[in-house]
Amino acid sequence: MMSPHVLNPSILLALSILGLTTATLGFIMDFAIQQLQHFRFYLSNTGNYVYDMGIWISFSLVTCTIACALGLWTPSVAEGSGIAEIKAVLSGIKINKFFNFSTFLTKFAAVTLAIGGGLSLGKEGPFVHISGIVAHKISQFTIFKHIHRNLTLRNQFLAASVAAGIASMFGSPIGAVLFSIEVTATYYIVSNMWRAAFCCIWCTVGYQLLQSARVNDGINNTHFKSIEVTEELFFFFLLAVGAGLMGAIFIKVSRKLIELRYTRAYPMLHGRFRYLILITIICSAATFITPYLEQTDRSVINDMFQTHDATDDGWSKTNFGMNLLIYMIVKFCITILCVSVQLPAGLIYPLLTCGAVYGRLVGYLVEQTVGTEHAGIYAAVGAAAMVCSTTHSVSIAIIVFELTGEIHYLVPMILGVFVAAGVSSAITPSFYDSILDVKK
Amino acid sequence: MMSPHVLNPSILLALSILGLTTATLGFIMDFAIQQLQHFRFYLSNTGNYVYDMGIWISFSLVTCTIACALGLWTPSVAEGSGIAEIKAVLSGIKINKFFNFSTFLTKFAAVTLAIGGGLSLGKEGPFVHISGIVAHKISQFTIFKHIHRNLTLRNQFLAASVAAGIASMFGSPIGAVLFSIEVTATYYIVSNMWRAAFCCIWCTVGYQLLQSARVNDGINNTHFKSIEVTEELFFFFLLAVGAGLMGAIFIKVSRKLIELRYTRAYPMLHGRFRYLILITIICSAATFITPYLEQTDRSVINDMFQTHDATDDGWSKTNFGMNLLIYMIVKFCITILCVSVQLPAGLIYPLLTCGAVYGRLVGYLVEQTVGTEHAGIYAAVGAAAMVCSTTHSVSIAIIVFELTGEIHYLVPMILGVFVAAGVSSAITPSFYDSILDVKK
Repeated sequence: MMSPHVLNPSILLALSILGLTTATLGFIMDFAIQQLQHFRFYLSNTGNYVYDMGIWISFSLVTCTIACALGLWTPSVAEGSGIAEIKAVLSGIKINKFFNFSTFLTKFAAVTLAIGGGLSLGKEGPFVHISGIVAHKISQFTIFKHIHRNLTLRNQFLAASVAAGIASMFGSPIGAVLFSIEVTATYYIVSNMWRAAFCCIWCTVGYQLLQSARVNDGINNTHFKSIEVTEELFFFFLLAVGAGLMGAIFIKVSRKLIELRYTRAYPMLHGRFRYLILITIICSAATFITPYLEQTDRSVINDMFQTHDATDDGWSKTNFGMNLLIYMIVKFCITILCVSVQLPAGLIYPLLTCGAVYGRLVGYLVEQTVGTEHAGIYAAVGAAAMVCSTTHSVSIAIIVFELTGEIHYLVPMILGVFVAAGVSSAITPSFYDSILDVKK
Repeated sequence: MMSPHVLNPSILLALSILGLTTATLGFIMDFAIQQLQHFRFYLSNTGNYVYDMGIWISFSLVTCTIACALGLWTPSVAEGSGIAEIKAVLSGIKINKFFNFSTFLTKFAAVTLAIGGGLSLGKEGPFVHISGIVAHKISQFTIFKHIHRNLTLRNQFLAASVAAGIASMFGSPIGAVLFSIEVTATYYIVSNMWRAAFCCIWCTVGYQLLQSARVNDGINNTHFKSIEVTEELFFFFLLAVGAGLMGAIFIKVSRKLIELRYTRAYPMLHGRFRYLILITIICSAATFITPYLEQTDRSVINDMFQTHDATDDGWSKTNFGMNLLIYMIVKFCITILCVSVQLPAGLIYPLLTCGAVYGRLVGYLVEQTVGTEHAGIYAAVGAAAMVCSTTHSVSIAIIVFELTGEIHYLVPMILGVFVAAGVSSAITPSFYDSILDVKK
């Protein structure tokens, strides 16, 4: 229950400044990434296939190499997801230079360049780190010094910044608060929740105001048909088991790759730039060759979540199922490769996309055999299940509800995320815990 | 994050049995209440106004007196909301006969009779107690003895039953889990959340399966128009301030009434049956005289949440605003009176209804002056804000999202509940805490 001490005005002020700042930064980053992506499209549109491919790959190489070089100035622990590190900081571990302004700048630029340059990465993880730095800086203002001095308050403020970081990526305050609880906490002080939620509201208001300028792509609200509790739930169960297994494979393989890089056994894998160049070439060649893979994650998710026939939108009528299958496999593989690179990297958006395509594929098969019309719901459940099986955070379900603007397909969704989380967590610890383990 | 120990099969089994049992009990109670309400309508339909009113009031008197007499067999602490008492039990206080089968039976019958007889009460609070007793009984089965023996597990199981109780009333698993955290916990073990959520899924699956028989009324999914972040938010802010003040008044007045009853200063108020009869007569006369107040809470909520013009549905075209205003005031007053009676009584549904009417009224006024078409959203936000200002639990917002099946009106909703909770909690502790205070 909300108690009066939560209403301390100076903390509320600090939280609202944090929320609005994070929303603005998220908007700027989104904008920059989109401009880079458009610019890359524009350059590689000469009409000559070989030229185009060369430009497509070179562009990627240039931006990613710069991003990787920028990383030389940040502490090595600030690479990777960022969520794992915030979790460590919240549990009392001190990381050198973690909250420096230089870390902020390099991380911001590196993420923008890497994703804008076409690597299959998400910005949520690094962005959570960025909003953590913003929180740290705000708490050092003279009027907020009392937050900085009090360890509990400081940690609460930092936890709020984790939520704000997620909220400003998805515009989903409730899911963000729950996600931040799940990934960072074992015990939770309930009053934290208010503070984080308050911060996220400002973040979401900022996000929506900035989105109303219609400069950046967003994920459109959907209009799914209602689904009742019938035997169709069994297909959602199968979907979730599949997502759980894929999530476990994702964690195992990417952990192995990162371990290999750390052991120095293979110089090719250990060298910072050599490995990056290798992966960048593989990844951008794959995105160029595979149909539809050059599209942004958001536009693919929008296509998958549609209620009407997605075959209308260029996902070739003749080979719809095959196209989805190929997209899914390639996307899955390049995302595993990309998260192992020494770059700040989130994995939620790529996995959400991969899961949406996987779900739509299952939905398409079900439609063909049983004849129901819920392919959009399958895509939404698949997206959440895939992320959930990797991060073991079922609150992604709520983020997807907030993204789609609907919540009536609650039963298949919750079944999906729970089964996926169950299957995956029976096999392996979550991605974040695995990475912390390797880095230790 | 979900860890493997959460997946203990015997606990999962116990949780699913609990969820399904609670859903079934909730359905039976709903059904019985509805039948009583229909029977009362049927009896008081002779055509003669005075006769009808006499029958209407007498019916109420009979059922409520039986309900009150049943209360003589339950421990006195088991009267009232039930949520306050579960909170006490979870924090280690032992209450005599709290988990007895006789308490279960009398409470079940008393709530059904009181609400079926027309008092303006909700079933969530008592139902949470009922599902707590179910949880207690299940944990005493031989195969689940280990749950009963381990205090932590037992409390987790009890906490899950609180969530299940709420979920089976609204069919809203996520909101129920969060609501149960909010009203019962200060510190929270995150793994509890999984268990509670797992239990609530079963509960919701059961609820939806039973609802698909279309025997009981439910709250319909809505189709609100999208709302953007504009200056219209200011009206939602005003709505929320109003709801916050009304909530604070509700708490203060009902606390005063209960205190008066406890002090024995006024024999009229102290006598168990005398007070009940007084209140029942006032309440049923008011519901008979006031237009539309004889309708059930659910049908009123459905009317209010409609997107199209609610004036079409009998809420008289000429005096729509005035009808809403009268309904709201009378409903508010009789709910205050009813919760002070010595009966098991929840307050969420009546307040949700009162808030929906209040919100619709504000929305109607805004429509008339500004010309936007979001009256349904105002009603939804008003409903949540009214409950939130009384219980200080903002998770009611999520329950309302789940009830309406939509979540895209997130910003006005969250603004509404937070402002309402802020205003009210700056004035008084929550209803549950106030009641615990008086009963101590």
